Amino acid sequence: MTRPVIAIHGGAGTLSRAELDGARERELLAALEAALAAGADVLERRGSSLDAVERAVRVLEDSPLFNAGRGAVFTAAGTVECDACIMHGPTLAAGAVAAVHGVRNPVSLARLVMERSRHVFLAGDGAERFARDQGVELMPASYFHTDSRWQALQRVRAGAKASDGERHGTVGAVALDDAGALAAATSTGGITGKLPGRVGDSPIVGAGTYANTSVAVSASGDGEVFLRCNAAYRVAALTELVRLTPRLAARRTLLEVKRAGGRGGLIVLGADGTVAMPFTTEGMYRGVRAAGAASRLGIFRGPPR
Amino acid sequence: MTRPVIAIHGGAGTLSRAELDGARERELLAALEAALAAGADVLERRGSSLDAVERAVRVLEDSPLFNAGRGAVFTAAGTVECDACIMHGPTLAAGAVAAVHGVRNPVSLARLVMERSRHVFLAGDGAERFARDQGVELMPASYFHTDSRWQALQRVRAGAKASDGERHGTVGAVALDDAGALAAATSTGGITGKLPGRVGDSPIVGAGTYANTSVAVSASGDGEVFLRCNAAYRVAALTELVRLTPRLAARRTLLEVKRAGGRGGLIVLGADGTVAMPFTTEGMYRGVRAAGAASRLGIFRGPPR
Repeated sequence: MTRPVIAIHGGAGTLSRAELDGARERELLAALEAALAAGADVLERRGSSLDAVERAVRVLEDSPLFNAGRGAVFTAAGTVECDACIMHGPTLAAGAVAAVHGVRNPVSLARLVMERSRHVFLAGDGAERFARDQGVELMPASYFHTDSRWQALQRVRAGAKASDGERHGTVGAVALDDAGALAAATSTGGITGKLPGRVGDSPIVGAGTYANTSVAVSASGDGEVFLRCNAAYRVAALTELVRLTPRLAARRTLLEVKRAGGRGGLIVLGADGTVAMPFTTEGMYRGVRAAGAASRLGIFRGPPR
Repeated sequence: MTRPVIAIHGGAGTLSRAELDGARERELLAALEAALAAGADVLERRGSSLDAVERAVRVLEDSPLFNAGRGAVFTAAGTVECDACIMHGPTLAAGAVAAVHGVRNPVSLARLVMERSRHVFLAGDGAERFARDQGVELMPASYFHTDSRWQALQRVRAGAKASDGERHGTVGAVALDDAGALAAATSTGGITGKLPGRVGDSPIVGAGTYANTSVAVSASGDGEVFLRCNAAYRVAALTELVRLTPRLAARRTLLEVKRAGGRGGLIVLGADGTVAMPFTTEGMYRGVRAAGAASRLGIFRGPPR
């Protein structure tokens, strides 16, 4: 029996140390802790890693603090469009959605695509039609309105370059259950001021999200570059074909992403329970929790607390 | 100076030998020849591989014989939705569109996403809005109506399993120009009776389409499986990390896809001009032409003619 473990991220490219006051930091850490606890609870009851990553990501989607679900950023058109993906390592089963409006928990819609359709990936209107057919919870536009995200759009519209904290904030989770099964999930609102219909790396199997029998990966960062670099699958290929450890594979992948012009972070979980959470941004909201142990949380450099 | 070469496919999963009469075969071979000639013409005038693959794919999109552009299959809703991707090996620049209606040449729209947006991938309404903004050629629904595709949808709606020839037919091209640059492009209508919004492997960088400085790849087959297997990038990873030849990398990838439950084909072009076009279906419409040489075309097993 494997010792279950879950790791999560709330986005590479955080608020800078200067921007992050104590109250905001406590809020963020509490939200990460709640997501970890929700996922760990599933694992400790001997639930599946697939259930654990979905549960953890739902908590992050429901928080207004992260760029996914409720706290998603605005498109150039002032709308909110979400992308998500979930993947089950043992079977390579996957589900993904992109450019969906009004869905409270895009990660759960992705799971329904995986389990209740013949497809892997649904986008736009078609994904929304599928959501209605499946009876998933829909929310009005007001639910997705957060003032800080709206201000960020106005600054981008006025020609400002969005800060890391404004641009990123994708959430994700990787987990290993007591049966040894890995799973990964990622959910995002994309980038502030994106063109409607823009799809980044998050919902793409092998770019922002990947799981097989060796590793589970969720990414966050400059989505276009992660996509062109097949970042999540690159980590898996380097562990499988070159026998790199998950940590070295993740670091090498981030270097390659950097050479291609992108920054960000990866959370990677190996089949033996080892976790790596490297990033090339100033910080990455992150946390890890093994069964029966306390959570370790982190934002900037240095080991997670 | 490299000797330029272009290879194309019109889909793995052809009509069976029994279904394919002489007249239809001549039509198909003529269309493949026209696409090869269009791409080769670009290369022989010292144009770029990017221009060559776009040109060749446009010819296939304009033919009613292939499942892309004009000849695209129908969704479950009786609509036509197209996906396409184009990628430039030297820079890893890429552009992709999915679930777009009414665009005559989706591959050219993908190229505009690559060159005239900050994004890599646009889907659905947003991609169509971008198409209108860019002034690309739009066509009425009647342009995309082909009787054989409509009949195929009726059979699928009546519960029949679509044949390989009805299910597949994606088109693609890979090319190497005299500057040594590789490029790849893929375009598809997806699968008959698909849910609206369904995205397969074709528009996904690393699944249906990929190019770097070593290989260019375009795939065709069971899209959901190719997507979950990161098929096109898998070929690149096996050549880069395990030093397999493009041919062996492509064959091994198709075996892995088969183990995951999928069939199809790959066209792969190496930086030295070697071409591999393996498939695990009964046939794959395909052709290859090196600068100054005659075209070699093939449908079933045996070397291209």
